[in-house]
Amino acid sequence: MCSELSTRERMVRAACELLETQGYHATGLNEILQRSDTPRGSLYYYFPEGKEELAAEAIERQGRLIEAGIRADLAAVENAAAAVQGLFFKLAQHVESSGCRMGGPITAVALESSTTNERLRQVCAQIYDAWRTAFEEKLLASGYPATETAALSTLILSVLEGATTLSRTLRSALPLQQAGEQLGRLLTLVRDASS
Amino acid sequence: MCSELSTRERMVRAACELLETQGYHATGLNEILQRSDTPRGSLYYYFPEGKEELAAEAIERQGRLIEAGIRADLAAVENAAAAVQGLFFKLAQHVESSGCRMGGPITAVALESSTTNERLRQVCAQIYDAWRTAFEEKLLASGYPATETAALSTLILSVLEGATTLSRTLRSALPLQQAGEQLGRLLTLVRDASS
Repeated sequence: MCSELSTRERMVRAACELLETQGYHATGLNEILQRSDTPRGSLYYYFPEGKEELAAEAIERQGRLIEAGIRADLAAVENAAAAVQGLFFKLAQHVESSGCRMGGPITAVALESSTTNERLRQVCAQIYDAWRTAFEEKLLASGYPATETAALSTLILSVLEGATTLSRTLRSALPLQQAGEQLGRLLTLVRDASS
Repeated sequence: MCSELSTRERMVRAACELLETQGYHATGLNEILQRSDTPRGSLYYYFPEGKEELAAEAIERQGRLIEAGIRADLAAVENAAAAVQGLFFKLAQHVESSGCRMGGPITAVALESSTTNERLRQVCAQIYDAWRTAFEEKLLASGYPATETAALSTLILSVLEGATTLSRTLRSALPLQQAGEQLGRLLTLVRDASS
């Protein structure tokens, strides 16, 4: 941790990392405090509602960062199918370079909270919608039929979440690489079929 | 719980349900014992290694049951694209009828355990491979090119896991329905393009 970071910022960053690697329930307050090198009093000073409030901010922060990354990656390549495929290959590298510990920063929390924590579920739902919208806007800008972009962007986001889960569980970048390659090819077929 | 079930069976079934709805770390031993109406002594009698051993058996059991279900559903419809789409629609109904509490029985545990519990990670990895193989065999039997069935079956499984996560988080069957519809259509395009 960089010493110039504020106490609050260190806590949020530690929470982001722990929530991504192991989920919400496995992440104890003590682990967050230890990782961010902060005293317990600081937590309740900055986050009076405790772990849930900190987790909500951490997930929202990660979600917005990733949304910006998705939008930048998609904007950098004109062809939507190639852009989506490139994004999957980049994610595969990221997951691999972390020893398959990272990737899918909100997936575990989303599933854990879907039945047990309405506040966190709502934050995750908003993030998923923001990511899906980024894909949909790219498809629309690339001339995909407006009647299909909602469903196609849901498909892309599903593959993103599912293939990341497989890559982490199987400890291999292959699922993300294979899924990205097939998805790129299929998006090209759809574009050709509808033009 | 049916009273004629053995104590051991009641514990495994309770674990299956709790792991599916809220994951591994959120599921306490007391909750499993309460749900299965068994005394604490029974747990260590049947599962000397405790919660981890019980969870491993529960996940493996669920995984085999679902593998059998996938194989039966795929065998019931000759066309692979239609069979896969039908399977997603059936899953969408299941998730919806549970109030979006159920679906993706091993996803949360897979992600939680990917960095923290090697035993559970391995069980989840084996189940994912079994499910993927069921899809691959259907594609091969339906004449999809053998050079592509591994990647295509990885894609199908990714969509299955990811769309279930979205449906549960967004509390809507729509992601599973949309993803299944698009996937069925894409599999048809691939089949036509390679024939």
